[in-house]
Amino acid sequence: MSVTAPLGFRAAGVVAGLKNSDDRDLALVVNDGPSRAAAGVFTRNRVKAAPVLWSQQVLSGGRVRAVVLNSGGANACTGAAGFQDTHATAERVGTVLDDSAGEVAVCSTGLIGERLPMDRLLPAIDTAAAELSRDGGLAAADAIRTTDTVAKISFRRAEAGYTIGGMAKGAGMLAPSLATMLCVLTTDADLDAAVLDRALRAATTVTLDRLDADGCISTNDTVLLLASGAAGVTPDEAEFTALLTEVCADLTRQLLVDAEGASKAIAIEVVGAASDFDAVMVGRAIARNNLLKCAIHGEDPNWGRVLSAVGSTEAVFDPDQVNVAINGVWVCRNGSVGDDRDKVDLRPRDVTITVDLSAGPESATVWTTDLTAEYVHENSAYST
Amino acid sequence: MSVTAPLGFRAAGVVAGLKNSDDRDLALVVNDGPSRAAAGVFTRNRVKAAPVLWSQQVLSGGRVRAVVLNSGGANACTGAAGFQDTHATAERVGTVLDDSAGEVAVCSTGLIGERLPMDRLLPAIDTAAAELSRDGGLAAADAIRTTDTVAKISFRRAEAGYTIGGMAKGAGMLAPSLATMLCVLTTDADLDAAVLDRALRAATTVTLDRLDADGCISTNDTVLLLASGAAGVTPDEAEFTALLTEVCADLTRQLLVDAEGASKAIAIEVVGAASDFDAVMVGRAIARNNLLKCAIHGEDPNWGRVLSAVGSTEAVFDPDQVNVAINGVWVCRNGSVGDDRDKVDLRPRDVTITVDLSAGPESATVWTTDLTAEYVHENSAYST
Repeated sequence: MSVTAPLGFRAAGVVAGLKNSDDRDLALVVNDGPSRAAAGVFTRNRVKAAPVLWSQQVLSGGRVRAVVLNSGGANACTGAAGFQDTHATAERVGTVLDDSAGEVAVCSTGLIGERLPMDRLLPAIDTAAAELSRDGGLAAADAIRTTDTVAKISFRRAEAGYTIGGMAKGAGMLAPSLATMLCVLTTDADLDAAVLDRALRAATTVTLDRLDADGCISTNDTVLLLASGAAGVTPDEAEFTALLTEVCADLTRQLLVDAEGASKAIAIEVVGAASDFDAVMVGRAIARNNLLKCAIHGEDPNWGRVLSAVGSTEAVFDPDQVNVAINGVWVCRNGSVGDDRDKVDLRPRDVTITVDLSAGPESATVWTTDLTAEYVHENSAYST
Repeated sequence: MSVTAPLGFRAAGVVAGLKNSDDRDLALVVNDGPSRAAAGVFTRNRVKAAPVLWSQQVLSGGRVRAVVLNSGGANACTGAAGFQDTHATAERVGTVLDDSAGEVAVCSTGLIGERLPMDRLLPAIDTAAAELSRDGGLAAADAIRTTDTVAKISFRRAEAGYTIGGMAKGAGMLAPSLATMLCVLTTDADLDAAVLDRALRAATTVTLDRLDADGCISTNDTVLLLASGAAGVTPDEAEFTALLTEVCADLTRQLLVDAEGASKAIAIEVVGAASDFDAVMVGRAIARNNLLKCAIHGEDPNWGRVLSAVGSTEAVFDPDQVNVAINGVWVCRNGSVGDDRDKVDLRPRDVTITVDLSAGPESATVWTTDLTAEYVHENSAYST
């Protein structure tokens, strides 16, 4: 049940009126402790939205009491006034919780370059605070949607007696360096900020970070991990990291399937790489190749476009030793024509492209979508 | 008049039957001298088609007697057998011209990963040789088209008494490192291979190389420059380079306007950059941003997506000092909201995006297209 699955968390999702609809657009997640340890990872875009700049500062202290999130406006490229708006948002949450604004993280998503309507946003914080509950996780997940068609939630319970929950949104600008616009993860395990930070980076590196829908890096990407300690359990770090990775993988899968206008969910498995870095680089180059993404949309097993994308990278490989399989059929062997491409069945939604670089023992998987007329339509008609 | 505008060149374009149509698909361009000096630039893709590997070898000698070009098949990822096909193609040209195959360049374009039908290609070389003429430039330009809707040709006459001509094709995989699939430039000036090489690199760096339709790098990109010396004039190198740049710019413009499925021709002018490298890097990042390309297609002056693309680069800039104009309206000033975006008129086909990094004196222009449903359709229905 989303971010409220672990003990110690309450949440709410309300209608502030930021969107041109009657949908929920403001979410509040509160950690009632006893611990407030937290960690965060943020967009690598050098143009960072005001809430990212604010929340990075908050997370540098390793403690978060609450996260307030809004859809309906990114508050990016809004200058000093926009930063003041984020500050005022955190202050209002601090006031209603009778706590410090310095431990309130802020996340925003929506159109870049417009100020948020603070006259509607601030009162909605009061409303959300009044509605905070142990059942509020779903409403919160609903409130952070933009063009997401469904809310993304996940949770896992550990045998050791703790829980990890999470919610995410990210149908649009799934990014190369961080795949979801906004993601809040919660746990009732008792772990300090340093452990949370290591676990979060390890988990997102192989999941959310490898979802690359269109190669665009958002100004607002934020993933937060909050620990209440309410379960009274301090798990083994490796076990916790593994479970957190499961939750992140689940959310990644949900984001992939709901990506804007996509008709295929494509897993690019790069094997035989000389390094992990090479494997990811090759995977991303393939994921960003518009021509290949069009071909997969047309259910055309055009492996030449795969090789062309591989060849655009600096990875270690010999063009005459690269093998490519599409949905299990090795259509390219040793850089040349392999098995009959007519044997490839591209009708299922799930597509797997396997690239064997024959250059070493490393591997990585990157996920992407096909390129469709619907993607063009959504992104030309909708100002994100 | 294309490649036959300068003295000393004959050309032909014939139907070999390589395409699934009755269109011309084989071109031959012959340099009758007295000089055979030549230079070439090739794709930076590490997966290179057989004709690229062959022609690089030919050009290393600095002399070219003839170029044979085919559409209807790229002869890429075809292994040793594909290389033999290219070799046999050059040999046949050598035979019909009673000359050395070692001075015959070969270019191919079309589907990757399939062998060429040599039983149809080789006889067509004989036909083309029989049809070679001083008027053959247009037929040759026509024969190298794939999804190009029109043939691209250009020429300029210098006051000093020499001429530069050229033809190009490249509606599809306009590349980041070399924008046209195939381009043959000719001149009757008398210049040695070293001068031609410098002039060609200088001219293409600021023209064909800065046309970035979809960020994909072809396996076959080739630009050749052949000098017959038939005008008996040895021009000043700088003057020649300037005129060659004009011809290349003209062809670049034609390629841009005819790019697959595009409805907008976008010039991205990056000014105020700390270095030329930075200016080009930022221009390319913007040119490859699918979200922005969709917005321009929808005639939405979404400058936030421009800033987001700038922020994804390593260029020197301060996010709070970047200015962006779209069709002359400075919609973003100092990284924040500028003039009224409703003043931007995006209805014309030509769109100019100006980015002022406020970081130095350097500038560069990169050209791209919008992302359209037609692009998706052409590239999902057509196996390139």
